[in-house]
Amino acid sequence: MYTHEIESFLEEDLGYNDISCKLVPDHNVEAIIFTKEDCTLAGTDVALSFFDYFGIEYSTDYSNGDRLSKGDVIFTLKGSSLLILRTERLVLNFLGHLCGIATNTNKCVDIVRKYSDRTKIACTRKTTPGLRKYEKMAVIAGGGDPHRFNLTDSIMIKDNHVKMMGVEAAIKSAKEKAGFTQKMEVEVESSADALVAARTGADIIMLDNMEPEEVVKTVDFLRRSSIPEHIIIEVSGGINMDNLEGYAKTGVDIISMGSLIHRSQWIDVSLEIVKVQE
Amino acid sequence: MYTHEIESFLEEDLGYNDISCKLVPDHNVEAIIFTKEDCTLAGTDVALSFFDYFGIEYSTDYSNGDRLSKGDVIFTLKGSSLLILRTERLVLNFLGHLCGIATNTNKCVDIVRKYSDRTKIACTRKTTPGLRKYEKMAVIAGGGDPHRFNLTDSIMIKDNHVKMMGVEAAIKSAKEKAGFTQKMEVEVESSADALVAARTGADIIMLDNMEPEEVVKTVDFLRRSSIPEHIIIEVSGGINMDNLEGYAKTGVDIISMGSLIHRSQWIDVSLEIVKVQE
Amino acid sequence: MYTHEIESFLEEDLGYNDISCKLVPDHNVEAIIFTKEDCTLAGTDVALSFFDYFGIEYSTDYSNGDRLSKGDVIFTLKGSSLLILRTERLVLNFLGHLCGIATNTNKCVDIVRKYSDRTKIACTRKTTPGLRKYEKMAVIAGGGDPHRFNLTDSIMIKDNHVKMMGVEAAIKSAKEKAGFTQKMEVEVESSADALVAARTGADIIMLDNMEPEEVVKTVDFLRRSSIPEHIIIEVSGGINMDNLEGYAKTGVDIISMGSLIHRSQWIDVSLEIVKVQE
Amino acid sequence: MYTHEIESFLEEDLGYNDISCKLVPDHNVEAIIFTKEDCTLAGTDVALSFFDYFGIEYSTDYSNGDRLSKGDVIFTLKGSSLLILRTERLVLNFLGHLCGIATNTNKCVDIVRKYSDRTKIACTRKTTPGLRKYEKMAVIAGGGDPHRFNLTDSIMIKDNHVKMMGVEAAIKSAKEKAGFTQKMEVEVESSADALVAARTGADIIMLDNMEPEEVVKTVDFLRRSSIPEHIIIEVSGGINMDNLEGYAKTGVDIISMGSLIHRSQWIDVSLEIVKVQE
Amino acid sequence: MYTHEIESFLEEDLGYNDISCKLVPDHNVEAIIFTKEDCTLAGTDVALSFFDYFGIEYSTDYSNGDRLSKGDVIFTLKGSSLLILRTERLVLNFLGHLCGIATNTNKCVDIVRKYSDRTKIACTRKTTPGLRKYEKMAVIAGGGDPHRFNLTDSIMIKDNHVKMMGVEAAIKSAKEKAGFTQKMEVEVESSADALVAARTGADIIMLDNMEPEEVVKTVDFLRRSSIPEHIIIEVSGGINMDNLEGYAKTGVDIISMGSLIHRSQWIDVSLEIVKVQE
Amino acid sequence: MYTHEIESFLEEDLGYNDISCKLVPDHNVEAIIFTKEDCTLAGTDVALSFFDYFGIEYSTDYSNGDRLSKGDVIFTLKGSSLLILRTERLVLNFLGHLCGIATNTNKCVDIVRKYSDRTKIACTRKTTPGLRKYEKMAVIAGGGDPHRFNLTDSIMIKDNHVKMMGVEAAIKSAKEKAGFTQKMEVEVESSADALVAARTGADIIMLDNMEPEEVVKTVDFLRRSSIPEHIIIEVSGGINMDNLEGYAKTGVDIISMGSLIHRSQWIDVSLEIVKVQE
Repeated sequence: MYTHEIESFLEEDLGYNDISCKLVPDHNVEAIIFTKEDCTLAGTDVALSFFDYFGIEYSTDYSNGDRLSKGDVIFTLKGSSLLILRTERLVLNFLGHLCGIATNTNKCVDIVRKYSDRTKIACTRKTTPGLRKYEKMAVIAGGGDPHRFNLTDSIMIKDNHVKMMGVEAAIKSAKEKAGFTQKMEVEVESSADALVAARTGADIIMLDNMEPEEVVKTVDFLRRSSIPEHIIIEVSGGINMDNLEGYAKTGVDIISMGSLIHRSQWIDVSLEIVKVQE
Repeated sequence: MYTHEIESFLEEDLGYNDISCKLVPDHNVEAIIFTKEDCTLAGTDVALSFFDYFGIEYSTDYSNGDRLSKGDVIFTLKGSSLLILRTERLVLNFLGHLCGIATNTNKCVDIVRKYSDRTKIACTRKTTPGLRKYEKMAVIAGGGDPHRFNLTDSIMIKDNHVKMMGVEAAIKSAKEKAGFTQKMEVEVESSADALVAARTGADIIMLDNMEPEEVVKTVDFLRRSSIPEHIIIEVSGGINMDNLEGYAKTGVDIISMGSLIHRSQWIDVSLEIVKVQE
Repeated sequence: MYTHEIESFLEEDLGYNDISCKLVPDHNVEAIIFTKEDCTLAGTDVALSFFDYFGIEYSTDYSNGDRLSKGDVIFTLKGSSLLILRTERLVLNFLGHLCGIATNTNKCVDIVRKYSDRTKIACTRKTTPGLRKYEKMAVIAGGGDPHRFNLTDSIMIKDNHVKMMGVEAAIKSAKEKAGFTQKMEVEVESSADALVAARTGADIIMLDNMEPEEVVKTVDFLRRSSIPEHIIIEVSGGINMDNLEGYAKTGVDIISMGSLIHRSQWIDVSLEIVKVQE
Repeated sequence: MYTHEIESFLEEDLGYNDISCKLVPDHNVEAIIFTKEDCTLAGTDVALSFFDYFGIEYSTDYSNGDRLSKGDVIFTLKGSSLLILRTERLVLNFLGHLCGIATNTNKCVDIVRKYSDRTKIACTRKTTPGLRKYEKMAVIAGGGDPHRFNLTDSIMIKDNHVKMMGVEAAIKSAKEKAGFTQKMEVEVESSADALVAARTGADIIMLDNMEPEEVVKTVDFLRRSSIPEHIIIEVSGGINMDNLEGYAKTGVDIISMGSLIHRSQWIDVSLEIVKVQE
Repeated sequence: MYTHEIESFLEEDLGYNDISCKLVPDHNVEAIIFTKEDCTLAGTDVALSFFDYFGIEYSTDYSNGDRLSKGDVIFTLKGSSLLILRTERLVLNFLGHLCGIATNTNKCVDIVRKYSDRTKIACTRKTTPGLRKYEKMAVIAGGGDPHRFNLTDSIMIKDNHVKMMGVEAAIKSAKEKAGFTQKMEVEVESSADALVAARTGADIIMLDNMEPEEVVKTVDFLRRSSIPEHIIIEVSGGINMDNLEGYAKTGVDIISMGSLIHRSQWIDVSLEIVKVQE
Repeated sequence: MYTHEIESFLEEDLGYNDISCKLVPDHNVEAIIFTKEDCTLAGTDVALSFFDYFGIEYSTDYSNGDRLSKGDVIFTLKGSSLLILRTERLVLNFLGHLCGIATNTNKCVDIVRKYSDRTKIACTRKTTPGLRKYEKMAVIAGGGDPHRFNLTDSIMIKDNHVKMMGVEAAIKSAKEKAGFTQKMEVEVESSADALVAARTGADIIMLDNMEPEEVVKTVDFLRRSSIPEHIIIEVSGGINMDNLEGYAKTGVDIISMGSLIHRSQWIDVSLEIVKVQE
């Protein structure tokens, strides 16, 4: 995390004159940060940035992606009580939010793993404004795929492109404009369009808003039509933890879920001062 | 929303070269933003900032705090299809996230209103880093109270202050340091401490981690001890939608719930192009 | 002080290529910063931020709020002559300006202390743009009260609100909108309005542009009307060092003076290199 | 003034939620900004930046540098009452501070004009951190000279350079490093050094901390020694409004005074709403 | 171009007080920007951002990528002479630099087109710090490919990865870490490694520092080994306009040349005021 | 280089998640940065800023301005392989670009030195947007003069001023507005105007777009007219390495060449890991 990011987050929480923290003299203390719920860990690198900024010593037995049980100690901290208390709320807000996303993702991965070793869970561009890079890293920590970061990352041919130009023309036009390092993803709503996309040069075919049975049929149809092997089949649209199992069984490559992030809830993470040096 | 904030959010989502948006020629279009779930509206001012930035015309029948039903159209937009599509994801991310918080808050307010016209629901400093001001405004839209914005806003005497100095000494020390426009809030865990706080000059007495019955007893005790009328009684600690009813019955002034924000989930808000001008 | 603030101030003073500093080879030196006038000290924390940024060692016998006599050495510095000279002007500009405010404030406090142990001197929002937090801290260093930081901090019902709605309606409307951690301040121009304000729920009653005798009458009237004890009485409007004594005798709680800052003048603070290491 | 500067100043004063301004419905109003003291005008361009940012219409009969009498109306404004009140404090803080500097400068210019049409008054690098460009423009508005803006602007050979290398060697070394668009200024404490400086290539000779009589002698000595005509003689060090007259009589080219800025006090400028449109 | 970028570039060029521009009264003028050399046009969108910022009207007959002849008028401008002169240098610096890159790129494309309709010219991450997005857009304007924008865009397995792990292990490890929207590029130095890469899942095979004959052999070998059709063959390393022809004949897909940018020189573009309104 | 500059350059090159760098475990390594072409060194201070930011140890035998031969090692680095590789491209981009400018400048200086020890080569305001201070320092490293930094630095009377007001009136008007630390430069196109400028108070006379013979005549004419000795004669307009020799012979003080920067090409600088610690 860059210095200017650290400071911008601190300014939001501290204001110019925190009187409460000055009521008690500063002490050298030892503190722990622990989880009050089972969770998948994320955001430790963000936390370290704040500890480093304030010169707080830390140790940890875990890294992002580890599964933790209620009560596990994420960090042991040593340093000035004033500085530890000043950074407490911000670090816990990050950890709570990001562990929430990682845990939610990890649960979805577990559901999918029951049916496939290969199918990946991915998030989307439905991310909290300003926090995309942290949230995508939390999805990775939870075993998910970050999908494209922004509109420049890859080319996405959407339903309205298809409506106005037809799949084939849209892909040809896109190929002329695309950079060679960019993948081209095409959103389709029928098997027929999926096949045209596969044959015209799409790298990723996204089946949009299809029921699982329709997905199965389309995937079969595409495979029987012997499309190039490197093509990735993705499903997306209204998938959440409740209907995920149906899609997990379809054997697609990627299941994209905005809900990894926008339905996640924070994990309850807490800080406690455990030793005050006399 | 300031220009530099608008641009910083846009940079995150757009990258430097959005090829997809250039596939189809730019058109003058009409689009609607509508909700796919019942919700309490928030974030319209944020959305307007983006429309203004891009010169997109808008009209709306609603304002923050209105209760909407599934299908209600929040905004009707007119302008360049390219610019509307470019701002789409960001505006929807803000609306989805903020309406989620307002809706969650409003549900809690409804629960409390069954028992009291006076008790307020408040959020805390558990907010998504970088978005505090937007989230607090969403809590207000939902009928809640924003609580203090940052550590400078008011003085909070916490359990560790009390442990080290005793309530009375801590408050006296705080009064010397406090600005006269700041309220002083004292976190207590017993009726006895609550009374000392009330008599020593606390403006807000926060009953921390008490069960509802204990809250009732403490409030009765304080009122019988005829503490000054302006003193506000707040409960806080582990309160969520499940146990809220118990606290609503206690007749306290304020119920603080981090969960207004950290347990909220996005409302599903969507954009659709409804007319393309030839 | 945050890194980005330090650097923004430095960029203003240094430009891109300070040739003068390169004329003489860099040396390890010892330097002192001392005051050429009696003053009340402020801004030492700001100075330390610059020393830390450049890796300059420092020691000091004083802290903000101490009264210094002409000639007193505020800091003894050790380090690279080039870096000490590069930070010199900026540190002296801060110290001169902030000690000026602290000293001015402290003189006003002394005047008031002759008549009252309780009355506080406060500044206002008349602060130099961009420097409010430093200037408010200097007022605190001088023994004054910082008043509210910005328009969000507390609610202020002003004369034009009163004119358009009446005191009572204005306060009631404000109470609905106010957060529970915010104090409500009401500006009044008559005893009658002051009483209505006190009875409707104002936390602070500000007597605007009243002569001292009128203040005395109003305070008496309010106290005889047995208004709640926690209500704070403030006077404001055109008060400066010349007419302060009159207000000091009235026994109000707070005397607000924009002039603490906008009539202050810099203290003459200087840096001298005292030892050059061979 | 750049957008990012405007917004950074606004953020300091507004906070995230100004409730007071929402108490009364927004109206179309006419307002005036007028001075309550005689003054020299400065900062009108800064004020216009804020009016433009908020879409407030304005008209004015004056420009920077004009001398105003108590009661003169600087701006007539038309627009939303909410926006006018929101920008009020910030605009008045700028105008008050900058008119204070311009007025102070103008008084010094008047003193000097009694003795010389040619001698200029200049400020120094003793400026309020973050506001240098505004303050230097205020000095110009008051009829003064801004002196160099930062350490890169020109080359200044100071007493410690002279001590360590001698004047001649220092200037020669500086000439090698100097850009050809930069003037070279040399600080001297004796006539002898002044002459060496003049003959070695200094563009500006600054007589540091000399009494007026000594200045007269040095100037005479230099003129008799027929130094090049383009060389500018400057005096500096402890000059203020009280001892300025002595230096004004010496006939030097430039009198530099940090006190133009650090001894200035704000002019009392006020805003009044004069018409509310029904 | 974002407002904060526009202002940051302007601050570099203007400083705080441009006196020269104030010597002559402001006039309404018409001006042209024209090229003094044949060139390929780039940077017009950047120029428009500055014209919009200053409210300067413009018209143009060209768009990025057009080939211009010496003397062609790129823009006709109308507006305040002061503002046109203030933005002149900055706009010309952008146009000169970016047209230089586009022209250089276009020349390389022409060389390649003599031998292949399919082979693309691409730039690299050797870009001027701070200007990457503008320079990559200029490469696109010149008919080139922007290659990946930054280290996150795609995965690049480099020679030192191969050395330490072997191609196969490196690719397998990378595939586990890669997002599904990212292409994987592998840098190889032998036909054998190229084949392993193609069979293990590389999307792009980059032949590093090979002579043209070696490239021909490797491409033949790969095609005879019937690698998947979507795989892209790229050559890179020390290619410039002098040796480009040799690589153009090899029939690879992509020729990457840092020299598109780092060997480009500015096109001479000029502004002339052609009409002054009385 | 300030922290916020370092981070802004890094963000451009790194993105949020560089997977390639994580393929191989981090090692303690030794690396060298060396030049593959003869060159004049510049930008070492910029490089050091990045090494310091990442805690990379460095040593070097050279400083800016040194002439290096192909193969010379500029820096030896020690530290984490991950961090060295992460900073590699950015440091090399700076060194390549800035050494290119310094080398180009130094060649021009060499050409001039054949005819004059006194004539200086200077760059102009034709600099890459955002990089002016680095590029001007590179010109200095190459033995050139940076000329004025921005429009505020000195006063430049241009041809259109002269056209509208005449030289004499323009200079007189400028002298009233000029600060005393600013030099005044006047652009002239005839001997006659040059003489008027010299006699009216110009510090620098810039002969614009004159052929060498015309320059010689004008300089002779001015010297015969015994203009003040401190006046600097500059030539400018379309001068490049090809026609430089002609101007070098004229004996002017300054030869300004935009081409020092806009015709420079990068020096090929490379990083190699030379030792990996087991």
